[in-house]
Amino acid sequence: MNQQHTISSYLIERLKDLGVRHVFGVPGDYVLGFYKEMENSTLEVINTCDELGAGFAADAYARVNGIGAVCITYCVGGLKVANSTAQAFAEKSPVVIISGAPGKSERVKHPILHHKVRDFDSQLKVFEQLTVASAVIDDPDTACAEINRVIDAAMKFKRPVYLEIPRDVISRPVTPAKTEHDKIPETDGNILKEALQEAIGIINAAEKPVILAGVEIHRFGLQKLLLELLKKTNLPVASTLLSKSVIVESHPQYLGVYEGAMGRDEVKEYVESSDCLILLGVFMSDINLGIFTDHIDQGKCISTSSEKLSIHYHSYEDVGMEDFIKGLISCETRKREILDIPNPPHPVKPQPETGKKLTVDYLFGSLNSFLDDNTIVIADPGDALFAAIDMSIHSATKFLASAYYASLGFAVPGGIGAQLANPKLRPLVLVGDGAFQMSAMELASAARFGLNPIVVVLNNEGYGTERPMIDGRFNDVHLWDYSKLTEVFKAGKGYEVKTENELEAALVDAKKQDSLTILDVHLAPDDSSLALKRLTAALKKHVK
Amino acid sequence: MNQQHTISSYLIERLKDLGVRHVFGVPGDYVLGFYKEMENSTLEVINTCDELGAGFAADAYARVNGIGAVCITYCVGGLKVANSTAQAFAEKSPVVIISGAPGKSERVKHPILHHKVRDFDSQLKVFEQLTVASAVIDDPDTACAEINRVIDAAMKFKRPVYLEIPRDVISRPVTPAKTEHDKIPETDGNILKEALQEAIGIINAAEKPVILAGVEIHRFGLQKLLLELLKKTNLPVASTLLSKSVIVESHPQYLGVYEGAMGRDEVKEYVESSDCLILLGVFMSDINLGIFTDHIDQGKCISTSSEKLSIHYHSYEDVGMEDFIKGLISCETRKREILDIPNPPHPVKPQPETGKKLTVDYLFGSLNSFLDDNTIVIADPGDALFAAIDMSIHSATKFLASAYYASLGFAVPGGIGAQLANPKLRPLVLVGDGAFQMSAMELASAARFGLNPIVVVLNNEGYGTERPMIDGRFNDVHLWDYSKLTEVFKAGKGYEVKTENELEAALVDAKKQDSLTILDVHLAPDDSSLALKRLTAALKKHVK
Repeated sequence: MNQQHTISSYLIERLKDLGVRHVFGVPGDYVLGFYKEMENSTLEVINTCDELGAGFAADAYARVNGIGAVCITYCVGGLKVANSTAQAFAEKSPVVIISGAPGKSERVKHPILHHKVRDFDSQLKVFEQLTVASAVIDDPDTACAEINRVIDAAMKFKRPVYLEIPRDVISRPVTPAKTEHDKIPETDGNILKEALQEAIGIINAAEKPVILAGVEIHRFGLQKLLLELLKKTNLPVASTLLSKSVIVESHPQYLGVYEGAMGRDEVKEYVESSDCLILLGVFMSDINLGIFTDHIDQGKCISTSSEKLSIHYHSYEDVGMEDFIKGLISCETRKREILDIPNPPHPVKPQPETGKKLTVDYLFGSLNSFLDDNTIVIADPGDALFAAIDMSIHSATKFLASAYYASLGFAVPGGIGAQLANPKLRPLVLVGDGAFQMSAMELASAARFGLNPIVVVLNNEGYGTERPMIDGRFNDVHLWDYSKLTEVFKAGKGYEVKTENELEAALVDAKKQDSLTILDVHLAPDDSSLALKRLTAALKKHVK
Repeated sequence: MNQQHTISSYLIERLKDLGVRHVFGVPGDYVLGFYKEMENSTLEVINTCDELGAGFAADAYARVNGIGAVCITYCVGGLKVANSTAQAFAEKSPVVIISGAPGKSERVKHPILHHKVRDFDSQLKVFEQLTVASAVIDDPDTACAEINRVIDAAMKFKRPVYLEIPRDVISRPVTPAKTEHDKIPETDGNILKEALQEAIGIINAAEKPVILAGVEIHRFGLQKLLLELLKKTNLPVASTLLSKSVIVESHPQYLGVYEGAMGRDEVKEYVESSDCLILLGVFMSDINLGIFTDHIDQGKCISTSSEKLSIHYHSYEDVGMEDFIKGLISCETRKREILDIPNPPHPVKPQPETGKKLTVDYLFGSLNSFLDDNTIVIADPGDALFAAIDMSIHSATKFLASAYYASLGFAVPGGIGAQLANPKLRPLVLVGDGAFQMSAMELASAARFGLNPIVVVLNNEGYGTERPMIDGRFNDVHLWDYSKLTEVFKAGKGYEVKTENELEAALVDAKKQDSLTILDVHLAPDDSSLALKRLTAALKKHVK
C-alpha cells in the first residue's frame, strides 16, 4: 500500500486483501461516488433488483468465500438490509455492510434531508443492534484505524459489521494504519491443560463417544482439523441442520444430520444413547435441534465453541475452540476400531411412472440422485429445507440454508452469492412457492450476470409449513405461472412439472442449459416430507 | 365492549373503532394465532408476497384512510418492514405495526429460538428508533392501557407505532381500560391571542401574502379549514410536492406546486416575491422544496405546524396548528379581491403522431388528460414523481408519493393500500423500471384481491435519476419484458408501448379492463422531465 490512499481506496484495498472480489448492492445518490470508486477498482459490483436480495447474496457469498460485502444507500437502502444482516448475525456470517450517508457539510443545522428518518444516527442505532461492530467513518485521521477495527471484528466473530461513510469524505486522503489485528484472546496454557486432561479422561473411558460437528467448524475454517480428529480417534460424527455438509457426507464415519425427532431415527438413537457427546461449535438452537425434540443430556457433554468450553455442568474460561480441538488431536485420545455405524443410505434413483403425480418423497429422491460434485444446494426455510435433510451432499460446504434464523426468500439471492463466490459450483435452489414470491425477481440479477441456477419451486399453493399448525386463507398464495418468469426476464428456460416423468425430463434438460432454469413443481397442498410432519407436530404445541 | 375481551380481541376492537378494515401482512408461526383471530373477526387480512409490500400498502392505506395496520412475524417479518416504517415516520403516516413474538413461556433460560437475532428485545430496540411509541404486550393487567397508549400516540403524532405480542398471551382475558386519550396539549389562550394579533397584523399589512399548504393539513384532517381560510381571505395558495393534492387543483386560488427551481417558474416567482408567506404544516425538507433551490426568507414567514408556531425569527409555545388556523379564520383577517394568479395550465390532450417515439413530455401530457375524478395517482420516487408535479389532480388527496423519504418500490404496493382504503378509486401507478423491479411481484397481491391498478412503467433502462449525477454500469438494470408479468400472475393485461399512438391505444384499452394492467413504456435513457433536469443539476453539486 504505497500509493496515496483515500478513505474509499483504503476500504476497497482492505476488502480485496481479505478476499472480497464482488460487492452486492443497489446504488443511490448518497453512495454513488463510492460505486464509481468500486467500478474503477478490480472489485466487481453486482447489482440486484432490491437491496434485501443484495444482503442475502452477500451472506451466501460470505459463507462460501469467508467474507462478503453489501453496499447500499442511506436508510432507504440500509433499512432494507436490516433483515439479511440479522440473519448473518444469527447464523455467524461475516458480511461488511457499507452505507452511504449525507455529507458532513450537508448536516449543519440539522436540515431535513431526503431518506432521513429521525436523526442522522437513526440508521447507525439500528445496526448497532444487528452487528458486532459499527462506525461512522467521517474523520480522515481515524478512518483507517476504524475501518480496521470494524473489519477485524467481522473476521474475529464471523458476524456482520457496519460502516457508514458520509458522501463528502470518501476522497479524503488518509495514511493507512498498521493493521493491528484485534488479537483473539490467547488460550491460557494451564487452563487448557486441565481441561484437556479432564476431557480426554472422559472420552477415553466412554463406551460410545460421538462427535457432533456444528456450523462454527465451517465458519472458523476448522474442517481440516475435524478430519484429523476423526482420523486420530475413529469416532463417529453427526452434523446439525445448520452445519449440514460441514463434512463430506460419504465419509465412512458420518452418521447424518442429528435433529432430534426430525432427523433419521437411527441417528437420533445413536447420538442420544452416547455416554459422551463431543459438541464442536454447535448452535443449540430450536430448529437446528428439532425444536427441542432432542434429548441431549448436558451431564454427558463436552462442548467447545467460539463462545465457551464446558464439560458436563462446569465451564473453563479462555480456551479457544481451535486450541482445544488441536489438543484433542495431539494428546492421547484413544484410537478406536472403526465402528459399524448407521451411515446415511446411498441415494437410490427412483423409477418414474409415466403420468404419476409427483410427491415430495419422489421429488427429493430424484433430486438426491441428481446432485453431482459441482452442485451446491441452497434450501429456503420450509419443507424445501426439511426435506433436504437427507440429501447426500457430495463434498464439504455444498449446502447452505437459513436453518436457524429461518428467513424466507434467502435461497434465490443466496444462489447468486454462492455461484459468484465459487464459479465452479452450480446452485440447486430449493424454494417453496411462498418464499419464491418474495425474491423471484432476483433471478433477473442471476440472468444479468450470466449465472445458471437450477431453481426448483415447491408449488403447493401456500405456506405449507403453517397449514398443519393453524390454517386459514392467510396461508394461501396467489397462484403464479412460475415457469413463465423466464419470458419476463428474457433468459433461461422454464418447466411446468406435474408428474414423475416430467420431472425426470426437466432435470435432464435443465442440466444441459447454461442459463437459469425454473422448475415449477406441482405438489399436493397436504403433501409434505416426514421431517416436516414431525416438526409441525412439535411446533403445534407452542402455538396457542 | 361488553363481551369478555382477550388481548387479541381488544386490539382488534380498537383498530376497528379507529377505522381499520384491512390489515396487511404475511403470516409466520409466532403470529399465526393472531391471524386466526383476525380471520374470525370482521377485519380483512390482505396477504402480500413480501412483508415490505405489506408495510408500504399499510402506509398508503393510512394516508387515505386515516390509520393503517401491518401484521408480521418476529424479526424475519418485522425487520423487513423497518424501511416502510421509517418512511411512515418520516412522512407522518399513522401505521400500527403488530408483530408476533416467541411466547413468554418459551423464553425461560434464554434458549436460542428461531428468528431470534441477539436478544429477545433486539427487534423492539430497532423499532424504538423508527416509531413514536412501542410496547411489548405481555401482561394482561396492563395490556389494554398499553395498547391504548401506543395507538393514541399514532393518532396524535400521525406517526407509526409498534406493538409486539408474545404468542402465548393473545388469548389471555383482559378488562378493557377506559380509553383515556392522551390529550393534545391545550393551546394557551393568552399566547394564542398574542400570536394571532401579531400574525393578523402582518398579514393584513402585507402587499402579497401567499399560503403554502403542507402535508400536515392532510394528515391532521384540516383540509376543510384550509378551504374556509381561503374563502375568508381570498388569498392564493400553493402546495408542496409532499402535499400535492391537499387541495383540489382546479381551485381558482391554487397556484400549483411550489418546489424551488424544480417547480413551474411562475409559482416560484409568485411565492418568492411574497412579502408574507403563511406556511401551514409544511415539511421544510430538501426534495420537498427543490433540494434547497428554494429562496424562502424566514424573516417574511408565519409558520404553523404540529411541532411549532413561528413568526419571522421568534416562536410561540403551546399553540396548536388547528387552533391557530381557526383563529385566522375567526379573527379580522382582511378579505381581499380575488387576484389574477398564475393557475396551473389546463391539461391539453396532445395529438399523437403515428409511429413517433414516446418522450417523457408526451407521456405526462397524455396521462394528465387521462386522469378522471376517480383516479388516485401514486408516483414512485424518480422521474415518475418529478414529472408528475404538473399533473392536474381532480380532487383532494388523490396524489400519493414518498416525496421526502424517497424510498423506491412504494408505488405498486401503495396502489393496493390506496384502493382498499377507498374502493371507488382506481390507482394510476407511475413507476420507474428500477423501482418496479423491487416490488413488481406485489401486482400478484393486487390480482388476488381483485384490484385493478393501471401501472405505467417508465422503462428507460436504469436509474435515470442517477445517470446525470455519476453514471456507470451500476445504473443499468436488467431489461425485463414487463408486460408479460400478467401471464405469470395469470391476471390482467400487459401492453408494450413505444410510440405515441401505441400509448393512446393502450390507455383507452386499459381503462376498459376491470383487472390490473401494465404499460411497459419505452423511453430513451437520456430523456427526462424538465423538473428532473433541474433537480439533478442541483443534486450534482452535493455528490463528490
